[in-house]
Amino acid sequence: MGETATTLEQSATNVEEQVSRLADMVKELQDSTASFVSKTTSDEQSLRQRALALNSSILRLRSLIDSLLHNHLIDPKLADKLEDELNKARCMLIDGDTASFLPGTTPSGFLKMFLGPINVRATRKDVQLKVKEEYNSYRDRTALLFLLFPSMLLILRSWIWDGCLPAFPVQLYQAWLLFLYTGLALRENILRVNGSDIRPWWIYHHYCAMIMALVSLTWEIKGQPNCAQKQRGVQLFLQWAMMQGVAMLLQNRYQRQRLYTRIALGKAKRMDVVWGETAGVDGQLWLLCPILFTLQGFEAYVGILLLRTALDGVVSEWQVIFCGILLVLMAVGNFTNTVQTLMVKSKFKAKMKRSKSKQEFD
Amino acid sequence: MGETATTLEQSATNVEEQVSRLADMVKELQDSTASFVSKTTSDEQSLRQRALALNSSILRLRSLIDSLLHNHLIDPKLADKLEDELNKARCMLIDGDTASFLPGTTPSGFLKMFLGPINVRATRKDVQLKVKEEYNSYRDRTALLFLLFPSMLLILRSWIWDGCLPAFPVQLYQAWLLFLYTGLALRENILRVNGSDIRPWWIYHHYCAMIMALVSLTWEIKGQPNCAQKQRGVQLFLQWAMMQGVAMLLQNRYQRQRLYTRIALGKAKRMDVVWGETAGVDGQLWLLCPILFTLQGFEAYVGILLLRTALDGVVSEWQVIFCGILLVLMAVGNFTNTVQTLMVKSKFKAKMKRSKSKQEFD
Repeated sequence: MGETATTLEQSATNVEEQVSRLADMVKELQDSTASFVSKTTSDEQSLRQRALALNSSILRLRSLIDSLLHNHLIDPKLADKLEDELNKARCMLIDGDTASFLPGTTPSGFLKMFLGPINVRATRKDVQLKVKEEYNSYRDRTALLFLLFPSMLLILRSWIWDGCLPAFPVQLYQAWLLFLYTGLALRENILRVNGSDIRPWWIYHHYCAMIMALVSLTWEIKGQPNCAQKQRGVQLFLQWAMMQGVAMLLQNRYQRQRLYTRIALGKAKRMDVVWGETAGVDGQLWLLCPILFTLQGFEAYVGILLLRTALDGVVSEWQVIFCGILLVLMAVGNFTNTVQTLMVKSKFKAKMKRSKSKQEFD
Repeated sequence: MGETATTLEQSATNVEEQVSRLADMVKELQDSTASFVSKTTSDEQSLRQRALALNSSILRLRSLIDSLLHNHLIDPKLADKLEDELNKARCMLIDGDTASFLPGTTPSGFLKMFLGPINVRATRKDVQLKVKEEYNSYRDRTALLFLLFPSMLLILRSWIWDGCLPAFPVQLYQAWLLFLYTGLALRENILRVNGSDIRPWWIYHHYCAMIMALVSLTWEIKGQPNCAQKQRGVQLFLQWAMMQGVAMLLQNRYQRQRLYTRIALGKAKRMDVVWGETAGVDGQLWLLCPILFTLQGFEAYVGILLLRTALDGVVSEWQVIFCGILLVLMAVGNFTNTVQTLMVKSKFKAKMKRSKSKQEFD
């Protein structure tokens, strides 16, 4: 105690000096921070200008080579070589730290609506990749639940609930779907801002799914009597959700494998998210494609069945009609986008083959 | 055309050179970017260390002065002066660009769940302030809708719908509430990460409101016969929502005024969000406090009424009981937090008065 008191007395003599020294140091720190911020901002500005200039040079040279080739002013072999070099340069520009200086997609209205004007673009490439990785593992986890949740409901329905689903667990499932789709839509929007070129349709698809989950929550789940007939729509919906779970798991595995291969080959920006149906060129695609088309067919079938039950007057709520129309629209959109992706892929494949056979010929 | 062809021929001669020069420039840019990133990171690191050291020095000196004062080893007037200086230094540290180097609140689970591991912390103070401003104007806009939406429903109910609310508009309103509260909760979590010291309760309050909106969506809105009796809960809920709209508008006006005054006085970090009931010290508080307490009383009353209708067997769904309990809990939490805030404020006021009278005495 005596010692502490002595120390305190000593402190008392110079506390005033300590405080004023501290105030000076804070001021100094503030000055260095301000100069750091302004220096960083101007450095960034000049790097950004260089990146933009190089990016447009690449595009200019690319079209120049095209027109030279078109006018037979350049040897096709040389043109191929130069195009390869340009592609490499562009990959370097887009895939490295410089990527953050190139203009990204502006945040969507959806993102602004939920988050306000906050910046969700990561400036460093390693952070961007972490976000991407986490998105992939999030999808893995949700795909598993996507399979388990509806199958459990259907199993319990026939084992315990005597063919008649109680309202609460189904509504819990629908609430979870709403939450899941909101999270996915937000994350995909964030990935887009960070330079991923996910097809817009897959994000719209999640908006539709969000709306459907919301509408299905307001949809009264009727009980006995005549339960099986009244719950036909819900039951079909659960079966469709189960199939989607299986497809999602397959897709995730396939996508990740493809992505790693493509990164290794330097053909893809690592931020590419290729949701589901935008699948690759070989191998498991022969397994995946039939599943996807079957799923889309089933989606449309469930939609039409819902519309029929509504028109037959068995269940006459507006929710049934709305969900039916939405499911049909989603199926059509999914189908169109899958076909478009496959066409792009087959074109790419043909081009690769052509250049390969050319190389072998040389 | 002839000219273009000539230009093209000229280009053909040096296109190879152009491409290789471009590739070199991209490489150069990549190198400068890499060195820029590593330089910035190390500069940031050293600034961060200085900021942390100064921050802990301030805390140390503050407690030293307290114990000196306690042991009568320092003149109280000098202690007051030194404390003022320390407060100013801390304000400078917390309110300027240096703030981004001090550790913020880590993102909540709620934020991670919806957005993944993306960084939502703005490094520059002006961006942080923009986020705060936007949050305030978002609240203004929603408060207006908060008032208009339920009052419209209640007016239409007695004018057009003959005392019986149709399900669709009410469910639309509930879906909007869910969306609104999710947005508010996300934005407040983002503000917290950016250094705002909003009371955690007001965020929890929005989680509760989200859950309630979700549950109310699954709640069947019954029609004739006996509509007035069956819809008693919904009607009360709408009346309460209307009152809350009025209170929100008053609070927003009051809060913003207070905040600007406090910024001007240098007493508040500008990121302070003082949601609703954490109100200020004078003026409109005499108007605001009774409204807030009345609102909280009404909230509890609606909750109890819902529980009573459930126990009486008029409406026996689980949603009614759940919403009733939630409303009572929210009312109790709101009341406790308002009282706590008022107590903190009155202490602060007393302290201010003391130091003021001291100064006048001097």
